[in-house]
Amino acid sequence: MRMGKRLKKSEGLAGLGEFGFIARMSRSFLKGLPAGVVGIGDDCAVLSWTKRERMLVTTDMLVEDRHFIRKSVAAADLGYKSLAVNLSDIAAMGGRPKWALLSIGIPMGVSILWLDDFFKGWRTAARPSGVHLVGGDTTRTPGGIVINVVVIGLVRAGSEKFRSAARPGDVIAVTGNLGDSGGGLRILLDREGKSRSAGEGPEIIFLSRSGGRTLFPVDGYADRDEARLVRAHMRPRPHLEEGEWIAGQAGVRAMMDVSDGIDSDIRRIMEQSGVGAAIDLNRLPVSAELRRMAERRGFDAVETAAAGGEDYCLLVTVEQGSFDKVAAGFKRRFGRPLAAIGTIRSASYGLRYFKGTRRAELRSRGFDHFFQA
Amino acid sequence: MRMGKRLKKSEGLAGLGEFGFIARMSRSFLKGLPAGVVGIGDDCAVLSWTKRERMLVTTDMLVEDRHFIRKSVAAADLGYKSLAVNLSDIAAMGGRPKWALLSIGIPMGVSILWLDDFFKGWRTAARPSGVHLVGGDTTRTPGGIVINVVVIGLVRAGSEKFRSAARPGDVIAVTGNLGDSGGGLRILLDREGKSRSAGEGPEIIFLSRSGGRTLFPVDGYADRDEARLVRAHMRPRPHLEEGEWIAGQAGVRAMMDVSDGIDSDIRRIMEQSGVGAAIDLNRLPVSAELRRMAERRGFDAVETAAAGGEDYCLLVTVEQGSFDKVAAGFKRRFGRPLAAIGTIRSASYGLRYFKGTRRAELRSRGFDHFFQA
Repeated sequence: MRMGKRLKKSEGLAGLGEFGFIARMSRSFLKGLPAGVVGIGDDCAVLSWTKRERMLVTTDMLVEDRHFIRKSVAAADLGYKSLAVNLSDIAAMGGRPKWALLSIGIPMGVSILWLDDFFKGWRTAARPSGVHLVGGDTTRTPGGIVINVVVIGLVRAGSEKFRSAARPGDVIAVTGNLGDSGGGLRILLDREGKSRSAGEGPEIIFLSRSGGRTLFPVDGYADRDEARLVRAHMRPRPHLEEGEWIAGQAGVRAMMDVSDGIDSDIRRIMEQSGVGAAIDLNRLPVSAELRRMAERRGFDAVETAAAGGEDYCLLVTVEQGSFDKVAAGFKRRFGRPLAAIGTIRSASYGLRYFKGTRRAELRSRGFDHFFQA
Repeated sequence: MRMGKRLKKSEGLAGLGEFGFIARMSRSFLKGLPAGVVGIGDDCAVLSWTKRERMLVTTDMLVEDRHFIRKSVAAADLGYKSLAVNLSDIAAMGGRPKWALLSIGIPMGVSILWLDDFFKGWRTAARPSGVHLVGGDTTRTPGGIVINVVVIGLVRAGSEKFRSAARPGDVIAVTGNLGDSGGGLRILLDREGKSRSAGEGPEIIFLSRSGGRTLFPVDGYADRDEARLVRAHMRPRPHLEEGEWIAGQAGVRAMMDVSDGIDSDIRRIMEQSGVGAAIDLNRLPVSAELRRMAERRGFDAVETAAAGGEDYCLLVTVEQGSFDKVAAGFKRRFGRPLAAIGTIRSASYGLRYFKGTRRAELRSRGFDHFFQA
């Protein structure tokens, strides 16, 4: 479920945020939850299941002209990403995805080829984890395409990870590079201008959680760096194996996926756990591709890594005394580092950025502010 | 899940039906389902759970200007019905609803009062069964309101009921009156004209599965028959207790909910079970309110009972030798009859209507044809 995402999204939803929709939702509903149901503030709802396992449920609604632009999106990319972002929520809790439901509202103008491509992308996202589409609904819409995805997963009872479990002293770490998706988005935005004026070639889209954006030609990625960054944005890999492995390690406390960018997402952990955080921007793992692209295009790779969003790797906090062991195990298992990027502090500390030992500031803060006008 | 509804809906979706969307969906996805997952043709997907219980999942997407018209719907009625129709799918399998997810896409023009009313209606529908809203998603839409509801339920392993289990010789029966909802819809349609010309009072909506319709003043039901029929349409009661009780009785075979009308719904059982059916129109249970209203307004109560749809009672088939016992038990338990309306026959028999022993025909066939232009 997306209570967590809902909270995050509400910040972008100026109108809704203002009139306190979330607060009302919460007040009305979430107090009455039975014991064993964790209903708010995380990537998934956690429900009772067997003694040994718990059920995870997450859902996401994607709306044309808000989250994507039909003419500018390859249907396959849309299909891929609509499932992948929900799988990432399951990963964030340490679970395995089992079943998916897809409701899709389709205007008359949408061709069967579009739908076929959508499902091709969906299957590509589904294959690695074996998640099964078990049901859904189809309807015609007078407006645009609407997609609602539900993913149901399982997690070993007791190893489900919440945003609320971080404690002062924990090491903050991430399971992958940051900013590649944001870099890909920059390339797309640049291309958008280009392709709009030149009107060249077929166009595909990227999709963002905070609103739809547009347009770039499918071809024309002779540049391998560009191709890799755009791919990171269009075809993010949910860190399911990483999530399940990490959830099984002693000393791991909070976990969530990096959907809005570290700068936004660490604040969720701070809110939910009642803690502060110190983050060393010099330690954010940044790919060579992003560094080169940033240099060529004159943007700041570290800013993009901190605020770009949609990386869909995992953000974890690990009890300090256990971190070295967990990191070493991660390296053995996945062949790349579990990158320490900071430390959980007490709530009064707030959020502080450093570059090494020197205090630093982000110019941009969080996905919405970074990319939205 | 709504594979069943999807199939049904597709018939109303001329465009989609034509290009065989459902067939494609099925081909692409449903062959690959793991053992123990029943993925198509029923009111819910049935998933593995514990040894003693199975999980049921159903979902439904409601789109403004297709399934309802905002100006013409009381938000509370919309909230009530969007949950109730999904609860009815759980009832149709013999299950108990446990958890619900709600995704809602909201245009800027929708006020907080509207949302509050929506949730009031939702809670009214949720209360009797204790189903809990455990998550969801909210987003802004550039178009109309979009609502996606998921309900997850449980059913005792082995007592889940499918549409495919009917066998020749079974008695066909229903758990409630037929046609009240269709009668209510007629009243609304009549009123629509009236209220449109007179422009009187506040207006509320009714909601149909096959497309939105409109408009009638909240007040002005001095007539108790009218009020009861309209209420049957706006606030259908999912037959959850009936469904669970019936599913536990020996000799009960197929079950589904009456959403599109007996004439449509019996065809689902025929298709899924590979059988035919004889139905005695004289035996359709019709309320005194509907009879009186039909007489006053000059429509055929029996036609409405057979083809009106949205009654959300249950349609069951019971092995002939067990029927009297099941019906007597039902009467004791619920204080009203389990009404026998016909007999399952072999596939070659097709669907035949009778009035007593005389063959009869329906002038209208099924919800779509009955109400759609």
